[in-house]
Amino acid sequence: MMLSMNQMTVPSWGLDDFLARCDQTGIRSVGLWRERVQDHGLERTVAQLHSLRLDVSTLCRAGFFTASDADPSIVELDNRRAVDEAAALGASALVLLGGGLPTGSRNLTAARTLVERGIEQLLPYAERRDVRLALEPLHPALCADRSVISTLDQALDVVDRLPSAHLGVVVDAFHVWWDPQLWDAIERAGPRIFSVQVSDHPVVLRDPLHGRLLPGAGVIDLPRLLGAVAAAGYREAVEVEVFSTEQWARAPDRVLADAIDQTQPLLQEAS
Amino acid sequence: MMLSMNQMTVPSWGLDDFLARCDQTGIRSVGLWRERVQDHGLERTVAQLHSLRLDVSTLCRAGFFTASDADPSIVELDNRRAVDEAAALGASALVLLGGGLPTGSRNLTAARTLVERGIEQLLPYAERRDVRLALEPLHPALCADRSVISTLDQALDVVDRLPSAHLGVVVDAFHVWWDPQLWDAIERAGPRIFSVQVSDHPVVLRDPLHGRLLPGAGVIDLPRLLGAVAAAGYREAVEVEVFSTEQWARAPDRVLADAIDQTQPLLQEAS
Repeated sequence: MMLSMNQMTVPSWGLDDFLARCDQTGIRSVGLWRERVQDHGLERTVAQLHSLRLDVSTLCRAGFFTASDADPSIVELDNRRAVDEAAALGASALVLLGGGLPTGSRNLTAARTLVERGIEQLLPYAERRDVRLALEPLHPALCADRSVISTLDQALDVVDRLPSAHLGVVVDAFHVWWDPQLWDAIERAGPRIFSVQVSDHPVVLRDPLHGRLLPGAGVIDLPRLLGAVAAAGYREAVEVEVFSTEQWARAPDRVLADAIDQTQPLLQEAS
Repeated sequence: MMLSMNQMTVPSWGLDDFLARCDQTGIRSVGLWRERVQDHGLERTVAQLHSLRLDVSTLCRAGFFTASDADPSIVELDNRRAVDEAAALGASALVLLGGGLPTGSRNLTAARTLVERGIEQLLPYAERRDVRLALEPLHPALCADRSVISTLDQALDVVDRLPSAHLGVVVDAFHVWWDPQLWDAIERAGPRIFSVQVSDHPVVLRDPLHGRLLPGAGVIDLPRLLGAVAAAGYREAVEVEVFSTEQWARAPDRVLADAIDQTQPLLQEAS
């Protein structure tokens, strides 16, 4: 299994530094963020990736279909732009977050319908551009503000109802590790796993947004998870994505080195 | 639907003040905590409850079957003591938390087996004392440190495998509100719902342990949830349990008054 590095693991670097350092440390695949690519310039990013022969495992992130304060057609336009960016970058997948509850709403059912209708509307465009959309269930602690899609089974239910070779899921260890249905859901997902992301979870989760640990430092059984996605047929890069105020306060060179050192043995153990 | 007040909503009061204030504000049912009852004296608490004609909706809390640093027989002894206390208090249910991952373990499957074996071992004693055990699924953010039982369906699976009129579940809105299977699970639970607890969830959850809101102040569709448990046959008290550093910093009289004022309309709406 190949390691990919998500740029939010070392966000203090600009794209120039991030790509150069990944290249220098032997990383061949990266996960990029739209805002950062836009700031850096899409064509310039594409040229640098090409020159360094770096693959893009994911482009993060589009979706947010429940943003009630935005015109749905503006959400759709921005999502089409994300598809265009993913196509230009040759990203293996464009990560979709469902979005949280619309402002002032308590209706999860309605919000989940908005997500599904939004994906249904975006999908033909993604198919035409040959971009794979990867719906990412997020940890239930982020249900209200980020994603009303919380479990892998729930994401797969959406994918089942919108069958397409261009629609799949993300399995992010932090978001799904606790799920008693996880192992069955990974098997159910099979070839529809478009992205696997790893980080770790502390014993006591004080900050659901930025309280993650480097892979191997926490309670998640990552070898079992990586073994399960491999058994389901996943052969692409495993992305290290660590939102962590603790790690972000350290020197990015050290974080990058530690992330690689701690993740590689897990990938080997699972292979 | 009748309101019950859990003492951890206003933890700055000792039991004397808590019981007196509940009585004065027309509350007829309370949720109590073991440590506080033990400190106050069990017999003294029983006498005061009797004198004020207050019911006990729940005694919190026993279980913690995964505590690997404790001798299992000590865990069992403490849980039997909890059953004795619940019997003495006439509590409608004794709340069981499964416990988190044993120290140093990443094996959720093994931990969940420990929980089930622990309940199986405790159940005959609870039956003899006629104490109802209520297994409480906790929010996935608390999986590692508090409860490897995260969803209502998962708790019901355990209850299914250990059929007894003395084993059921707690439906705590904060812990389960996000679950896409919630409505089906409540229907499935039916008469096995032994306790219903309410609080609310902010849009952004900064503190999974103590970041709750008063009922009605957040994103949870509490009228729908209360309607669902009523439809499942639940007729007992609905307990207000708000772990909130924000509320705990306020005068307890105000918190009690606000909790009642905000919860009563929700109970009426659901009736």
